[in-house]
Amino acid sequence: MSAEIAVNERRLWQTHVDMGQVGALPNGGCCRTALSAADKAGRDLFVRWCREAGCEVAYDVIGNIYARRPGRDPKRAPVGTGSHLDTQPHGGKFDGIYGVLAGLEVVRALNDARIETEAPIDVVVWTNEEGVRFGPPLAGSSVFAGVVDVGTVHAGKTLDGTTVLEDLQSTGYFGKERPGERKFDCFVEAHIEQGPILEAEGKTIGVVTRVQGLRWLKVTVTGMDGHAGTTPMDRRRDALQGAAEMVLTVNRIASEADRWARLTNGRFDIEPNSGATIPGRVVFICDLRHPESEVLAALDAKMQAAMRAIAERRGLGIEIERVMEKPPVQFDGAIVDAIRVAADSLGFSSLDMLSGAGHDAMNVARVAPTGMIFVPCKDGLSHNEAESAEPGHLAAGANTLLHTLLARTGRA
Amino acid sequence: MSAEIAVNERRLWQTHVDMGQVGALPNGGCCRTALSAADKAGRDLFVRWCREAGCEVAYDVIGNIYARRPGRDPKRAPVGTGSHLDTQPHGGKFDGIYGVLAGLEVVRALNDARIETEAPIDVVVWTNEEGVRFGPPLAGSSVFAGVVDVGTVHAGKTLDGTTVLEDLQSTGYFGKERPGERKFDCFVEAHIEQGPILEAEGKTIGVVTRVQGLRWLKVTVTGMDGHAGTTPMDRRRDALQGAAEMVLTVNRIASEADRWARLTNGRFDIEPNSGATIPGRVVFICDLRHPESEVLAALDAKMQAAMRAIAERRGLGIEIERVMEKPPVQFDGAIVDAIRVAADSLGFSSLDMLSGAGHDAMNVARVAPTGMIFVPCKDGLSHNEAESAEPGHLAAGANTLLHTLLARTGRA
Repeated sequence: MSAEIAVNERRLWQTHVDMGQVGALPNGGCCRTALSAADKAGRDLFVRWCREAGCEVAYDVIGNIYARRPGRDPKRAPVGTGSHLDTQPHGGKFDGIYGVLAGLEVVRALNDARIETEAPIDVVVWTNEEGVRFGPPLAGSSVFAGVVDVGTVHAGKTLDGTTVLEDLQSTGYFGKERPGERKFDCFVEAHIEQGPILEAEGKTIGVVTRVQGLRWLKVTVTGMDGHAGTTPMDRRRDALQGAAEMVLTVNRIASEADRWARLTNGRFDIEPNSGATIPGRVVFICDLRHPESEVLAALDAKMQAAMRAIAERRGLGIEIERVMEKPPVQFDGAIVDAIRVAADSLGFSSLDMLSGAGHDAMNVARVAPTGMIFVPCKDGLSHNEAESAEPGHLAAGANTLLHTLLARTGRA
Repeated sequence: MSAEIAVNERRLWQTHVDMGQVGALPNGGCCRTALSAADKAGRDLFVRWCREAGCEVAYDVIGNIYARRPGRDPKRAPVGTGSHLDTQPHGGKFDGIYGVLAGLEVVRALNDARIETEAPIDVVVWTNEEGVRFGPPLAGSSVFAGVVDVGTVHAGKTLDGTTVLEDLQSTGYFGKERPGERKFDCFVEAHIEQGPILEAEGKTIGVVTRVQGLRWLKVTVTGMDGHAGTTPMDRRRDALQGAAEMVLTVNRIASEADRWARLTNGRFDIEPNSGATIPGRVVFICDLRHPESEVLAALDAKMQAAMRAIAERRGLGIEIERVMEKPPVQFDGAIVDAIRVAADSLGFSSLDMLSGAGHDAMNVARVAPTGMIFVPCKDGLSHNEAESAEPGHLAAGANTLLHTLLARTGRA
C-alpha cells in the first residue's frame, strides 16, 4: 500500500464548498431535491468536473450518472464508488455529496500521481436517494439493483405535478443503459456517519458492517370535517386528535424497545388544513428502523395494533399501508476487511459499526460485493442545515476509500 | 304585515343549485376560496342576477359587493342584508351563500309583487369571510366596520403568492368606495345554523341574540431537524411530539370547561415535512370560542400555560401569537325583536339562540343595528361538502328576512 499517494484535503473541501453554492439555503445548508432545477445544476457541475478529470460520463434509464476513469484492462469489471447529490428540503452540504466528491477526489489524486489502474473506476451519482420530491427513496439504486421496476418510478408524480420520466427528459439525464447491464467488481460508498458515535468515541473511520432495516407505514386517519365554532366537542370526529395520540404512541413504543429502535413521524399532512374547520383527514408516515429483522417486524406489528386501537376507540377510520420495506443488510466480508486494513495501514483509528440510515449501498449489496466507510460529523447532526464535518476527517475517509479501491483495481 | 308577499321557494332553491355549480367538488360541495378564479365566477354570476333584477351594483376598496334595489326616498339610509359567497376548501353550498341568495330572493319577490319600498335595500357580498386563501377571516366586513386597516389586508399574500390588492384588481372587484362612506339603517344576515340545535329542537327559525367570542392563537414549536435513522431517541428535539401533546391538551381543556367551550386545531403544518427527517418546527392555529368574554380569556390563558409547560418539559422553543380576537357580540334589541315578530306572524316556530360561528354581522354590529336569522341544516354539519338544508326551511328564513326588512324600509 502506497502511503505516498494521497488525496488533496484542501481541494476536497473546496469542492464541497463549491457544490454547496448550488441550491444554497440561508443557514448554510442546501435544497437540491431530486431532479429539481437545483439538482440538475448540481449534476451539471459534477459532470463538468468529471470530464475535466478525464472521465467518460454515462447515464442510465433512471438518471444514475456513471463517471468512469478508464483502467488499463477495459475488460475488467469496474470498481464502483459514489453516493447521491440530492438533498432533503433543509439538507446539509455533506450527506450523500461527500461520497460522490470523495470518489471524484480519488480520481483527481490518481491523475495527480499519474497512476494507471488495471480495472476502471466508476464514480456513481444515484438518483433520488432522499425520496422527498418523489418516491421511492433510494430510487436510482433500487432500479439499478432490480428491486424496483423502472416503469413504476417513471410514471410517479413529483411534488411539482410532473412525472419522473418528464423530469429525466427535461433535465437531460435520461440515459439508455438498462438495469443489469453494468456489473461492478465491488462497490464502496463513503458517507458522513449522520449519528454521534464516531465523535463520541473519538474515532476517525467507521467500518460499516451492516445497515439497519427500515419500514415505512403510510397511515390515513379519517374523521369528519366540521365547523370549529358550532360543532359541540362531544359530536366531533377529529382526525387530528386521533393522529396526535398515534404520534405520541410512536415515541412510547420506541421507549419500550431496545436502544437500537428508531421510530419517527417525519411527514404529516392534515386536511382540509383550515383554521376554522375540524380536520377530517390526516395522512402521515411512520418510519420504523431496527438492525434485527425480527425486532423490526415486532415493532411494525405493535405500532399497527396501537394505531388501530386508537382509531377504533375514537370512532375514526384508519388505513395502514406498508409503502417501503428494506430488510437489514450485512455487507461483504472481504470489502469490510479491505476497508479496515486500509484505515489501519494509513494510521487512522477505526470502529466497526452499523449504519442507522438507509443508503444506496444497501441496494447495490444485492448485486455486488459492497461496503461503506463512515467519517464523523459534528454533533451527529444530519438532515439539518447545520450538518458539518471536519476537512481532516473528510480527507481521512477519502484516503481510506482511495486505498480500498486501489486494492481491488490493482495498478498497471 | 302582508302575508300575501312571499318568496318563491323553488326559485330560491334553484338559485342555490346554480351557484353550487361554480367551483363544484365531487361530493356535492364547493371550493370557492376568496378571490380565486372560482370565487370570481361566483361573484360574476351574482352580479349578473342582481342587474337582471334591476339592482345598481357597486364595489368598495376591499371588494365587498353592494347590489341596491332603490327605494322611493333615495335620501333614506339603506336597509342592508347579505353574507358571503366564498367557501372553505371543502365547503358546502349554503354557508354564507344562503344569506346572499336570500337577499337576492327578497329583491325578486318584491319585484314580482311590484312593491316599492321607502328606503333602499342593499344586498351585500362580504369579501373573504372564511379567511382560507388569505387573512384575516371576515376581511370585508372588518374593513367595512373599521376594525382592520384596508392597506394591511391589501398587502397580505394569498396562498398562490399574489397580494390581495393584485387579486382585487385582476378579478375586477377593486372599487373606489371607502370604509365609512356607506351608512346602513340596519343590517340583517340570514345564515344556516351550522350546528345541530334547531334540528334537534324541531324549530324553523333561530332568532340570534348574540355571537360567541373567538380567539386564534398561532403557535410555533421549535425543536431540531435530525435524521430519523441515526438520531437516538433520547437525543431528539422533535417538534411534532411536542405539538401532538399540545393538540391533545386542547381537547382536555375543552372537556374540563362548560358545554359552550369550543377548542379546535384546524391548521397544522410541520417542517421540513419529509419522511426521514425528525420535524424541527410545527406551526398551528388554536381556535378558541366561548360566548362569555371572561371564560374565553380564561381558556386562552389556560391553553397558553399548558402549551408553554409542555414545550419547557420537552426542551422545545415556543412562540404564541394572538392573531385574531373577536369579542362576543350582543345583537341590537330592536332588530332581534323585529325578527322574532316576523317569524311569529308568519307562523314559524322560533328559538332565541347564540351563534357558535363568527359571522360578518359581528363586525357590522359595530356600526349599525344588526341581527341574524338562522335556519336548520342537516345534522348540524357545515364546513363539509355534505352540508345541506331543506328548501322549505330556506324559504321560511327568506320570508322572515323579507318581512323584517320591509318593517324597516316601509312601503311607498
